[in-house]
Formats: sequence, structure tokens, C-alpha cells
Amino acid sequence: MTMRMTTPLPHGGRLVERVVTDPVLAKKLAKGCPVYDIKPTVNEKGVPVRNVYREIMSICYGFFSPVEGPMGSAELERVLNERRLLNDWIFPFPLLFDLSQEDYKKLGVGPGDRLLLRLKGKPFAVLDISEVFVVDDREAMAHRIFGTPENNPEVVKEPFDKKHPGWVIYKCHNPVMLAGKYTIINPPTFKPPFDRFWLPPRQSRAEYAKRGWRTVINHQTRNVPHVGHEFLMKNAAYTGDIEPCNGIQVNAIIGVKRRGDYPDEAILEGHEAVNKGGYIKPERHIVTFTLWDMRYGNPLESMLHGIVRQNMGCTHHMFGRDHAAVGEYYDMYATQILWDKGIPSFGFPKSVCEVPYGLQIRPQNMAEFWYCPKCNEIAYSGSCGHSKEKQKFSGSFIRGMVAEGIYPPGVIFRPEVYEVVVKWWKKFNYPFCNEAYVKRVEEELEINLPDLDV
Amino acid sequence: MTMRMTTPLPHGGRLVERVVTDPVLAKKLAKGCPVYDIKPTVNEKGVPVRNVYREIMSICYGFFSPVEGPMGSAELERVLNERRLLNDWIFPFPLLFDLSQEDYKKLGVGPGDRLLLRLKGKPFAVLDISEVFVVDDREAMAHRIFGTPENNPEVVKEPFDKKHPGWVIYKCHNPVMLAGKYTIINPPTFKPPFDRFWLPPRQSRAEYAKRGWRTVINHQTRNVPHVGHEFLMKNAAYTGDIEPCNGIQVNAIIGVKRRGDYPDEAILEGHEAVNKGGYIKPERHIVTFTLWDMRYGNPLESMLHGIVRQNMGCTHHMFGRDHAAVGEYYDMYATQILWDKGIPSFGFPKSVCEVPYGLQIRPQNMAEFWYCPKCNEIAYSGSCGHSKEKQKFSGSFIRGMVAEGIYPPGVIFRPEVYEVVVKWWKKFNYPFCNEAYVKRVEEELEINLPDLDV
Repeated sequence: MTMRMTTPLPHGGRLVERVVTDPVLAKKLAKGCPVYDIKPTVNEKGVPVRNVYREIMSICYGFFSPVEGPMGSAELERVLNERRLLNDWIFPFPLLFDLSQEDYKKLGVGPGDRLLLRLKGKPFAVLDISEVFVVDDREAMAHRIFGTPENNPEVVKEPFDKKHPGWVIYKCHNPVMLAGKYTIINPPTFKPPFDRFWLPPRQSRAEYAKRGWRTVINHQTRNVPHVGHEFLMKNAAYTGDIEPCNGIQVNAIIGVKRRGDYPDEAILEGHEAVNKGGYIKPERHIVTFTLWDMRYGNPLESMLHGIVRQNMGCTHHMFGRDHAAVGEYYDMYATQILWDKGIPSFGFPKSVCEVPYGLQIRPQNMAEFWYCPKCNEIAYSGSCGHSKEKQKFSGSFIRGMVAEGIYPPGVIFRPEVYEVVVKWWKKFNYPFCNEAYVKRVEEELEINLPDLDV
Repeated sequence: MTMRMTTPLPHGGRLVERVVTDPVLAKKLAKGCPVYDIKPTVNEKGVPVRNVYREIMSICYGFFSPVEGPMGSAELERVLNERRLLNDWIFPFPLLFDLSQEDYKKLGVGPGDRLLLRLKGKPFAVLDISEVFVVDDREAMAHRIFGTPENNPEVVKEPFDKKHPGWVIYKCHNPVMLAGKYTIINPPTFKPPFDRFWLPPRQSRAEYAKRGWRTVINHQTRNVPHVGHEFLMKNAAYTGDIEPCNGIQVNAIIGVKRRGDYPDEAILEGHEAVNKGGYIKPERHIVTFTLWDMRYGNPLESMLHGIVRQNMGCTHHMFGRDHAAVGEYYDMYATQILWDKGIPSFGFPKSVCEVPYGLQIRPQNMAEFWYCPKCNEIAYSGSCGHSKEKQKFSGSFIRGMVAEGIYPPGVIFRPEVYEVVVKWWKKFNYPFCNEAYVKRVEEELEINLPDLDV
């Protein structure tokens, strides 16, 4: 009877790494290629909602292993129908390289061609094209991706619409899809403070091995951590195998921002402040990020999160209620259901850990934390018997307090964490992402590209 | 890949139940048998250190499954050499029915005879004798049981001596051993408050099933729970499989008391006060006990605890430092070592969960909890980075405070729990077991025996 866990294999069996660091080879690969300047995907109002560069980064650095590039028509169909790649491994979302008809005509490329992708005016990656196809009805595609109350009655409560940012991303894709494989030929460098949190799967696995972490639990975040988040993190981490998890990995999803989000810089440094302040000691805690324009697909998003964190070497993944959710499209427990008994209409009659070609990372499905004046502590709903006296963490209440300039009490924010909020507030003139921040980020991105003459 | 745990089988494959409740059958079994009045085992000063009735109870109600009665010479040898029963299942301690030479001569019984055992002057159980043998050197036996620094260098730090209460129990056994099988023919009734905490394995398993507890973690106790114990309990319980353990089982070891222990009544009701007070809600928490005169065998004791709690239906067992230890005979991590990688010199080259005929219950090896003024909470040493500021829970400090009549602050005792200490203090005129309490308990025991005319 084996009871000790070990670092799981990457999803699909091996890590994808498609990054060329040798400029000589890079130039050779790019030589004579037609050129395309990557443009953000924009919504009906022209506001950026996605930048495919983030998908290229996550694919080429192995976060999305075993995916190697934008999907072809057969793979797209299989993902929509079964949430599986053509090689049978489970995968929740289409990853597409989309062009307008105009750009496609201008480029004049087809299967067998290699396209040089430029970002911020510099060479970035190449795409070896294997197929070109058209998706006429992207709105229908978006519905198939996220589900409908009719087709997915187990978990979908409301039809998706333009208030859902992930649905909008797919609806706003261009019609022409180039499929194939990406290769980064000019690795970007991250701006501070992003640079010190960049730990792609191979490096992440090496870091855990170096730290002697056999078991590592992930905490997904898009937030500056309040004390409730800290308690979720450190308490979920008591799971493991014969002892609590050796390490706690915070992995922030960094991508297109929405107004009212905390700035990415504050999110990363806020989590770091938890370990710098000793609330979870640095020997047991690490802050990292993944580039991805969140699709907010709750159970489907959780599956992607599981893939990313398994690829990064985690053994466990904590899931609360309303995981990666916006609005009330999904049942608030949809993610826990997927990891517990599965969602048949999405192709999973059993947990995503128990189906063939499924995941090896294990769920830790958690209930709520609240402040209990009777227990005199942040208490767990599964244990605390004082549900009448409880004081819930309300994200919007806390944001309201922050926006009003009220210094929050220690039971809401650790002072070291709140200082990070203030630091970036001063820099950006507002504690949350406003239009100026969102616009600047999507223009400048988190990265710089070195010069590369091709 | 299976990830969901289910209630483990009893140790050895099936629950032992050797309790006759039908008085007609009881009379038939006892008819014409020679009679022996159970006497406590006493130390050199004549103080009771053990009462074999507790072993008879634990064997016949299945806590010690698959053991069915006192061991024979071959089984004793195997337990001493390999910590295994003759049927190969692991077991840490000899269980013997010992008589003085005088009593043995008076009785004149031998293999094939049935002996009627009386307790408090009433019929209690029968022993079907299969073998009679003599252990001349019980001190040598005691050394073989607990280990020596020479033979067990992995974990034994000091030679055992008469300051160790478990070693004394075996040293003070009488020389003549009757082996065979016990059957209780007159089930005792427990005095209040013991009666409402009595839940032998079959009933315990049924109770968990009724409550819908798939996963249950045990907390071993001999203490009125201070807040540090409560935190160990509720935090260790975050382990499980896909979610935290459904239930938390407190199982107190009730047996011979030492001066300075808390009274058993206060221990049981003190744990109950944790759930009555809502600190761990009653739906997730249950208080039970097992009769056993603790041998304080640290790793060996933990193995017995694992057997008992697996038989009761638990999936997990929490282990801290110095589990069931007195003094510094063993390495403070000896128990965790046994459950992690094993102790070869005790016969376990791997974890007791990983050897053939081993245990199915899983360990949750825990580090320490302390009060951290910086975190402003009871913190876990594995997470809290403020080891300079920490304030440890000192059992002796707390006992000193209690003995001085100081009402302890909420960070040490929950008020509801402390009220239980005070309640029994008033009854027994002292918060801890004094000589009068110890003497009375070993005279009167926790039980009453119904009349049974045989």
C-alpha cells in the first residue's frame, strides 16, 4: 500500500519546452518568414480583452503541456465535445491563433509555411502552420466552450452572455485560425517586480527538488491576500500524505485586467509579504505566476489550473467555492464537483483525477473561513459551530474600505501586506486597476523584448 | 488512480467480538468452572499499576482485533522478536494473563480447562485455557518489549528502569501465564459519565456510517484539552483525501492513573466541552475511550493506538512529538519515524502502513503549535516564521497555574473546558489525581457489574 506521494509527471507525460535561446538558431528559424505583428483581441468597444502572446508564452514554457501550439479544426472539435486533445489528454479550452480575413489575405500563408510573430515591434516567436480553417460563428463556439443550462444542467445555471469576460474573449476571436506549433525565438525579459516571480515548470520543479519539497499545494490567486486567503492557504496545506504539504505555491494568473482588480504588482508583492512577514515562512512558501487571460470558466478554469500546477510540480491544488468564477453562471460548487465526482455533460463521468488521461494532481476541496468572535479567531466553517456569530470576509466590503482610505484592522489585512497595497496605490494613484492602468498594461505588457536582428 | 479513502477493514480482517449477552448461555459457559478473582497488578510498593480486566474488555469488544485472548509462549516470543502475532499481523505488546505460583497451584488448572474470572465479586468472563507457561525473568521481558539503546539505537536513548510506568507493569507481572481465549459473559455497565462515551468498534463504525463520515481522524488523549490540543485536532483534520476529514474522533485511553494526571471524568467531559462549546461542532467531533493501562511505549504505543483506531473505523491518526511518552527514553520523533520510514530493529524496515500484514490507517505526522503574538493566533511551527517571539504551551506551566487556582486566559483554556476542570475539582477536592483518587479508581473501577447467578 503506497502512501507517499511524489512529484507528478507533467500532463501528457513530458514537459513541452519550445524556447530557442541561441540567436544564431533564432535567426535561422526566422529567415525569410512572412511577418505578423501580434494584436490584442478587442471587445465590441475596442477594449483589449486578450493578448495571444500570453498563450504563446504559456505553451512554449510548458505551463500548458502537452499543448505545443494553436489547435487545428479536429482538435478544436474534440476539445469542444469531450474536453480532450487529439492525443486523449484532457484539456478544457480551445487555444487558437486567430486572424482577421484582411490580415490573412495580406499574409497569404498556408500549411507548411512558417510565420514570424512580432511583439512590440520585435521578433518574438515563429508559428509553423499545419492548417488554416475558419470558425464562422464564434459566439456559438463560446457557448459550446462554457456550456449552457440545457446541455450542462449539472452546473450551468444561467446562459453565458457579454457580461462574462471569458465568453467575450472567445466571441471576439477573429474568424481565421492558423494551427500548428509555436517556438519562441526571442525570450522576453520580465519587468520588475514580475521578473523575480517568473518560474516556469522546469525551473519550478527544480526549485521544489532543491528545497526538498516532496508535496506542494497550490493556491490560485488574482487577489492581494487578506487574512482569510492566508488562512485558506495555510490550513488547506495541512493536507499531504503522511504529513502536511512541504510547500505552498502561490501561482497568480497574470493577464488582461478588469477595472477594480488589484494591480498585478500588488498581487505578487502582497503574497510575497505574507512570507516576508513570517505569517507563512519563506522556507515553506513561494510566489509565482502564469500568463493567461482568465476565462473565468469555474470548473473548466479549475481544470486548466490543475494542468498548469501539475506541470509546475505541485501534488495538490486547493479549491474553494466559486473557483475562478464571475457572476452566477455556474453552481458555486461546480469546481469541487468536477474534482470530486465529475461532470458527465462536460465529458467527465468521474473526477478529472480518475478518468483515463486525466490529472495526477490531487484536489483539496475546502469550505469557507470566517472571523468568529466566539472562537476569537479566523475559523473554518467545517469546524466552527458559531454560524450565527460569524463575520464573513466580504471582498467588496474590504475593497470599499480600501477605496475609502481606511486602514484595515489586522484581522482583515496583515500590515505588511497592506503596505504593499499602499505602495502601488501611490505609484498608480489608485488602489485598484483603473482605465489608465488597464490601457497601459495592454499596450506595454509585463515584458520587454531584447533586440534581435532577423 | 484511486483517491477516495473508505473505512479500513479491522486489523487482521475482521472484528473480534467475544461478548455473551444471553444469561442462559452465560450460565452454561460458566457452569462448574474453577473461579479466580481478578487482582490488580501492583508495583514494589503495593500500588496498583494495571488491571487485566481492561485488557479483557478491549480484547472481547474488538479494540485489539485480531487478538482473542492472552498470548501463548510462541506468540509472546514472536511479539518480542518481531512485533507480530502468530497469524503475521503486526502487534506491539504482549497481552498476558498472569498468576502467582501460589494462585496457580491453588487453582490447579491446565490446557483444556475453562476458568471463570470474577471482578468485584461478580462473574465477569471466562478464559478457555490452551497453554500454561512460566516467564521467570519478567524484567528481561520488559527490556525486550520496550527496547534498549544497544538493540534499538534508532530510537531508544536511555535504558528503561523503574521510573517508566509501562516497563514497571511488565516487570511486575506474575510468573505463571495462562494462554487462551477470553469471553465476557457478564457485560459490565459504565458509570456516568463514562457510559455516554463508550463506543466499541462495531458501534463506532456504525455511528460513523450513520453520520456520513467517510474519513475520520483520531486524536489520542490523556488530557483535558487546552487550546493547543484543540488546534492540533482541528488543524490535523484538514488532511483527508479530496477534502478535510469528515470526522474527528477523540479517543481517550482510560486506565490506571498516575498522580498529577487529570481525572478521567474531566478528560472526557473536557473534550466534550470543545464540541458543546462549538469550537469544533458536534456534527464533526466525537469523544470516545478505550480501556488500557498505558504502557507509554511511544512508537510501540502508537502502533497499538493505530490498531485500536483502525478497528474503530478511523482512516487517519494524528501523531505529534513525544507520542504517549514519559521521560526521555525514546527519541521525541520515534513515533513519526515508525509511521514514516519504519524502525528496523523493531521489525519494521518500512512504515507500519507499508509492511505486509500492517496497518491501513494513515498517519498525519504533525509538528508543534505555539501562541504567536506577531501572528496573533495559535500558530503552527511549520508555517509561523516568528520562532523568536513564540510562546509555547507548557503542560507543567498550565498545570501549575491550575493548581494555584488561577483562572487561565482564553488563549490557554476555553472557558467551557475549564468549567469542567472546576466541576470535577470540586467533586474530588483537587484538580488533578491525588492518592485518594488513584486508590479509589483502582478499587472501584469505571464499571459496575450486574448480578449474575452462575
